[in-house]
Amino acid sequence: MPTILLTGFEPFGGEAVNPSWEAVRRLDGWECRGHRVAARLMPCVFGASLDALDRAVAETDPVALLAVGQAQSRAELSLERVAVNLDDARIPDTAGNRPVDAPVVAGGPAAYFASLPVKAIAAALRDAGIPAGLSHSAGSFVCNHLFYGACHLRAVRRPALRVGFLHIPLAPEQAVRHPGVPSMAIEQVVAGLRIAVETILTTAEDRHEPAGTLE
Amino acid sequence: MPTILLTGFEPFGGEAVNPSWEAVRRLDGWECRGHRVAARLMPCVFGASLDALDRAVAETDPVALLAVGQAQSRAELSLERVAVNLDDARIPDTAGNRPVDAPVVAGGPAAYFASLPVKAIAAALRDAGIPAGLSHSAGSFVCNHLFYGACHLRAVRRPALRVGFLHIPLAPEQAVRHPGVPSMAIEQVVAGLRIAVETILTTAEDRHEPAGTLE
Amino acid sequence: MPTILLTGFEPFGGEAVNPSWEAVRRLDGWECRGHRVAARLMPCVFGASLDALDRAVAETDPVALLAVGQAQSRAELSLERVAVNLDDARIPDTAGNRPVDAPVVAGGPAAYFASLPVKAIAAALRDAGIPAGLSHSAGSFVCNHLFYGACHLRAVRRPALRVGFLHIPLAPEQAVRHPGVPSMAIEQVVAGLRIAVETILTTAEDRHEPAGTLE
Amino acid sequence: MPTILLTGFEPFGGEAVNPSWEAVRRLDGWECRGHRVAARLMPCVFGASLDALDRAVAETDPVALLAVGQAQSRAELSLERVAVNLDDARIPDTAGNRPVDAPVVAGGPAAYFASLPVKAIAAALRDAGIPAGLSHSAGSFVCNHLFYGACHLRAVRRPALRVGFLHIPLAPEQAVRHPGVPSMAIEQVVAGLRIAVETILTTAEDRHEPAGTLE
Repeated sequence: MPTILLTGFEPFGGEAVNPSWEAVRRLDGWECRGHRVAARLMPCVFGASLDALDRAVAETDPVALLAVGQAQSRAELSLERVAVNLDDARIPDTAGNRPVDAPVVAGGPAAYFASLPVKAIAAALRDAGIPAGLSHSAGSFVCNHLFYGACHLRAVRRPALRVGFLHIPLAPEQAVRHPGVPSMAIEQVVAGLRIAVETILTTAEDRHEPAGTLE
Repeated sequence: MPTILLTGFEPFGGEAVNPSWEAVRRLDGWECRGHRVAARLMPCVFGASLDALDRAVAETDPVALLAVGQAQSRAELSLERVAVNLDDARIPDTAGNRPVDAPVVAGGPAAYFASLPVKAIAAALRDAGIPAGLSHSAGSFVCNHLFYGACHLRAVRRPALRVGFLHIPLAPEQAVRHPGVPSMAIEQVVAGLRIAVETILTTAEDRHEPAGTLE
Repeated sequence: MPTILLTGFEPFGGEAVNPSWEAVRRLDGWECRGHRVAARLMPCVFGASLDALDRAVAETDPVALLAVGQAQSRAELSLERVAVNLDDARIPDTAGNRPVDAPVVAGGPAAYFASLPVKAIAAALRDAGIPAGLSHSAGSFVCNHLFYGACHLRAVRRPALRVGFLHIPLAPEQAVRHPGVPSMAIEQVVAGLRIAVETILTTAEDRHEPAGTLE
Repeated sequence: MPTILLTGFEPFGGEAVNPSWEAVRRLDGWECRGHRVAARLMPCVFGASLDALDRAVAETDPVALLAVGQAQSRAELSLERVAVNLDDARIPDTAGNRPVDAPVVAGGPAAYFASLPVKAIAAALRDAGIPAGLSHSAGSFVCNHLFYGACHLRAVRRPALRVGFLHIPLAPEQAVRHPGVPSMAIEQVVAGLRIAVETILTTAEDRHEPAGTLE
């Protein structure tokens, strides 16, 4: 049965959990429209996360990859459109690395666009009552690093692999220690991931409707 | 069996639902530590909401009242500390009233403080993994109006009735149409209300710990 | 010549300056419509600030008092409407005091409303191109403490003294160390204070127009 | 005398002014370290703005270009790092165009990085007491369009032309109609532009220090 690969990250930044992995791991083995989800945990480490991604892709041979990561300032499921070839770490990763203005892939293009139907996914999520939108920057930390690395993998070795990245809010139990910061129940994130997977499998061409930002 | 009265509001401001009523109504009849919850729907109307509150209190003779209302800009369960004697409506209520700089109760004091253990409730919520905090303004619309009216009822006629107000975030299905606005699952609000009720019934004296705001 | 008293605070919270005093002190001695401005520095200390205010009022015998304070999270000149009888300090004041749930004045009313024409001032500021609005909470730290103390002074000893409080954004030089926090040039705050003083002196009755908040 | 080209935009989105042009035009003719600033007005129009830029560059033959644009949600001077090959217009431009998911330049790379010393400029601004930072997305409207077009011009025809984009907050007179939105005095933006120009002319290599974002 063909595979959809979902990845989540280990905790970082002083958190005890990472909601991306808490959500993703609940879908390991889930079957949807003739495909099976494989969930894999990624280290929050520059370099090592790309090695782990390589292994996960080699092992599962997926038709699509949706990488998921935590975004403390966001209130909704946020589909990233652009991965940039830039590591610039405001804090160390969990292995202590702190690259500054380094490329993710030396000699790689400045950016890649997501190859999943991000507008269709966001629309399907909203239709299901789950707050969702698009984002034009995944930052310059390990989330963007993994997203860029996955896009590069597609570009150089796996042209049939569709790739995207989803930023999700903190879990409520995390937001408890961050006054005023939005959160989303893990159950809702899981429900959203099911919709995203289904939309990926049923959408050949993304929707053509405005969803940009002015600034 | 003695009663705890919970109130929620009808929808306003173009919304199809009001999460305060969606949450509160699920607890109607719930029994907790020898008390039974009565849930009542309040109109989002100046004046008429206070009449409805009077009727609900007369009918249920509660030992405590927790009024609940929707707050679009908040990310957490927000316990109000202060009700002010001021109606100043930026938009009309659902009956078309739009008072400006009018008192809730002519001749009433400028404000009342909540008489529920707000710090203990917020702490219990956070201990349960539910984002919560205190607020020093319930605004000047119908939420504050009802809160003030309830405090005044306690002051003039029902000194044994403990009174508080809880502002809650939008439901996710509402936030879908408000990009970037935080939300909270109704299930989590309901879980929070259970904790609030239990804390009210088990807390004689509020916690003495700092929870103020600088500005 | 009759006096308008403006007060600003000393720096607190690790800041080197307090924009309230930086702005207010530039207007010391300014004459406007037959009145002279007296600017006085207040300590950011519970209790001692009220003593300093008492002395300043005794010395200058003002017809109106506009107290000014720093508000880190605000983007506009923010006219406070309500002073509450509550000290609840999240951080210590500059003398190390940290009251919790104490009254500003034991036995005082729960709150006072500002007695300056806050809507007329905000409208005049906006007409002059200066961002301004109303606020329904001055917090529970020294700003609210001084505001409440000033209102209480009016209530018990100086009924002819009109009293208000203005929260102002950080100065740009402060915001440099707080990424994403709004700021306002001191020159603009000073221009706004001139407009506020002039509006106080020319407005007998405040404007009657909606300016409330929903929550 | 060699030229530094600064561009600003015409008003859009219902505004009467655009602070980018209000600031930039005041520096037209200013001389700094042997260079003269040329200020040019750009239409807020897809396509036509690139034509105007081409003409301005042909006419002034600049050594560096700093394009400036309005960003309603920002509180600081915000140096863009990445221009993406994507037009996705949430609102029509001032000529009524509303491209959706179109490239800025067909066949162009997915993105370009700024070629000005953005970290050195931000540091110099902050040293001068002017709030400043970096941004990893200039959006998908005309600002990003012009930024990408300028980078592409450098890539294909003018390798010696250093290119960057600066987003600036609303002017205070605009923020008056947008409650809670940050603003910056035009005088401070102008002061910031002088510092940016001087930093461009005195910095061969950008600073190597972390300035990324986590998400």
